[in-house]
Amino acid sequence: MQKFMRTADTAVSDYLHGLARAHPDLIRYDPERGIVVRAEAGAPKVAIVSGGGSGCEPLHTGFVGQGMLDAACPGSVFSSPVPRQIVAATQTVDQGHGVLYVVTNYGGEIMNFGLAGEILGREGHEIEKVVVDDDVALDGDLRHLRRGMGATVLVEKLAGAAAESGAPLDEVAAVARRTVQRSRTFAVALGPCVHPSTGSPAFELPAGQMEVGVGLGGDRGLSREPLPPADAVAEALVERAVAELSISDGARVIVLLSGLGGTPELELVGLFGHVHTALERRGAAVERSLVGNYVTSLESPGAQLTVLHTDDELTRYWDAPVRTRALRWGAPA
Amino acid sequence: MQKFMRTADTAVSDYLHGLARAHPDLIRYDPERGIVVRAEAGAPKVAIVSGGGSGCEPLHTGFVGQGMLDAACPGSVFSSPVPRQIVAATQTVDQGHGVLYVVTNYGGEIMNFGLAGEILGREGHEIEKVVVDDDVALDGDLRHLRRGMGATVLVEKLAGAAAESGAPLDEVAAVARRTVQRSRTFAVALGPCVHPSTGSPAFELPAGQMEVGVGLGGDRGLSREPLPPADAVAEALVERAVAELSISDGARVIVLLSGLGGTPELELVGLFGHVHTALERRGAAVERSLVGNYVTSLESPGAQLTVLHTDDELTRYWDAPVRTRALRWGAPA
Repeated sequence: MQKFMRTADTAVSDYLHGLARAHPDLIRYDPERGIVVRAEAGAPKVAIVSGGGSGCEPLHTGFVGQGMLDAACPGSVFSSPVPRQIVAATQTVDQGHGVLYVVTNYGGEIMNFGLAGEILGREGHEIEKVVVDDDVALDGDLRHLRRGMGATVLVEKLAGAAAESGAPLDEVAAVARRTVQRSRTFAVALGPCVHPSTGSPAFELPAGQMEVGVGLGGDRGLSREPLPPADAVAEALVERAVAELSISDGARVIVLLSGLGGTPELELVGLFGHVHTALERRGAAVERSLVGNYVTSLESPGAQLTVLHTDDELTRYWDAPVRTRALRWGAPA
Repeated sequence: MQKFMRTADTAVSDYLHGLARAHPDLIRYDPERGIVVRAEAGAPKVAIVSGGGSGCEPLHTGFVGQGMLDAACPGSVFSSPVPRQIVAATQTVDQGHGVLYVVTNYGGEIMNFGLAGEILGREGHEIEKVVVDDDVALDGDLRHLRRGMGATVLVEKLAGAAAESGAPLDEVAAVARRTVQRSRTFAVALGPCVHPSTGSPAFELPAGQMEVGVGLGGDRGLSREPLPPADAVAEALVERAVAELSISDGARVIVLLSGLGGTPELELVGLFGHVHTALERRGAAVERSLVGNYVTSLESPGAQLTVLHTDDELTRYWDAPVRTRALRWGAPA
C-alpha cells in the first residue's frame, strides 16, 4: 500500500500524536480517552463539540481552537466515534454554559452523539444538537440520508464565533441551524481513495470518467459521466449546489470549494475561478470564499462545492477571529 | 486525463484567475504580464520577488502578501518564468529600496533571473539574488545541481519578515543567505505526478516501492527502495536532512514537512510525529514547525523534510506576522 503508515491500526493515533506535536499551542491530545481538546479553554462560554470518522482531515481535529471547536472526537477511518469519547469530551469542555454538538448525518454519528447526550443529560449537562445534512446528491426517498459534508466547516466556524462572542446556547444552536438550512453541497470525484485497512481502491473509475454526487469515505456517486472541461464541471457543481437556495440577483454567498484530498492546488484553484464565474452569472455576489483541502476523503482526487446563502450576521461570524490548524485569521486573542 | 482543466494550455492562467478571485484582498493577477503582485504595497521597504515553474503550488504565488513576497512570476508547468515576467514584476514592486530575488537552483531560473537582473541593473534598479539549493539528494559531482525545494518557503518567510521590519537590502539578503546555509531538504515519493501536457505519469513505481531523493516536477529519485513503515521513513528523512547541519544536543530547529500534493493529511501529520521523535532523539529542539502542502509537485504522493538550524534572529523573523494565501499568522497590519 502506497501510504506513510506504521500499521493500519495505528494510522489514526499516529496522526493525533503528530497533530499534538505540530500544534502544542492550540490543542491537547488525550490518547487514553481518544479526544482532542483546546489547549486553553479561554473565557467561559458555550462549548462546541464535534467528531466523526477519521480520513476527512482537517475535519474535525484541525478545527479545534479559538473561534471553532472546543473538542473533537475522531473515530477510526470512516467510522463514527464511540459514545465514551463524546462523553469524555463533553465533561472536559463544558464550562457550565451548555454544549453544542455538531453532528454530521451518518447513522453512527446520530446514534452515538444521541447516546452520549442522553447519558450526560441525566448528569445535568445542558446539550443541544444540530445535524448537518448539506449534501444534495441524495433526494426523494433518500433525502433523509443526506450526508454532512462541507457545510460542517461553516457550521463549526459560525457557531464557534457565536459561542466565542458570548451568545447563550439557544442562540449558538440557532446560528448553527440557520447555517445548515442555508447551505448546500455537491461533490464529484475523479478517482477513489484507498482505505488503510484494506489497501484496495474504494471503486474503479475508468480514465476520462467522473463519479458524480459522491460522499466522503469512498462512497460511490449517483452516476458516472464523461469528465468534461473544468468550466463545465464548475457549472454542474453550482447548478446542483444552489438549486434549493434562493439565489437571485444580488444574493450574498459564502463559498467553500474543498478538495477531497488528492486534487492539486493548481486544479482546485482553477476550478474555483470557474465556480466564481458560474455563481456571478446567476446573479450571486461571492462575499467570502475558502478554497483548499478542508473536508477530504483521504487521497481522493475530487472536489465538493458548498454554497451558503449568507446575511449580515453570518458574514460577521465568518469574519470573526479564528485560530486553529486549518483556519486562521483575524487578531489573536 | 483525470484532471479539472479546460485545456493543458490554460491550466496555469485559469489557476491565476481563480487565485485572484479567491484573494482580492491579498493579490492582483496581471494576465498581460503574467505576474502576481501584492494588492497593497504597504510602507516603503525592500521588495522581494520570486518565481518558478507552476505545479508546485502554493509556491510561489500563494506566498505573495504581507511579510513574504511582493511579486511572483509563475512559469508554465515545471518551466521557468521568462525574463519579461521578472522585469515587469521588478518594475512594479521596486519602491526604491532595492529588490531581492529568491532564485531556486534550476538552470532556467538561474539564467532568467540573471538576465532580468542585468537588464534592470542598467536601468538603475538595485538587485540582490539569493540562490536556494537545499536539496541534499544530489552530492559529489552533482552537488552544484542541488535543487531549490522546501527551504524556498523558509527563505521567503524570513527574508520577507526582515524586509517588512525595514531592514536594508544587504541585511535582507544576508538573512536569506543565512537561511539557505542553515537549511537542508530531503524528499521521497510514493508515486508520480501526471504532467497536464502529456497526460502520462512521470515514472512508473511498483506497489510497495518508494522513490528516494526525488526533486519536484516528477524528477525521479536517486534510488528505489521497499517502502518501510512511516517511522523508518521519518528516520531516513531526518538522517539525510540533518547530516550537513550542526545538530547537537539542544540545537534549535524549525521544521517544514511538506506533502508533495497527493499525500493526505492523515498520513503527513502522522509522519510528522515520527519526524519530531527522530529529531528529538538526536538532541534537536523543535522550536517551530509547519506541516502541510507548501511546496508540491502536482498530485505526487510523497513528502519532503526541510530542517532549518535556527537562532534568535531567524526565529524572531519566523514569528513575525504574515498574511498570504498559504501562510497566515500574527496580527493583521
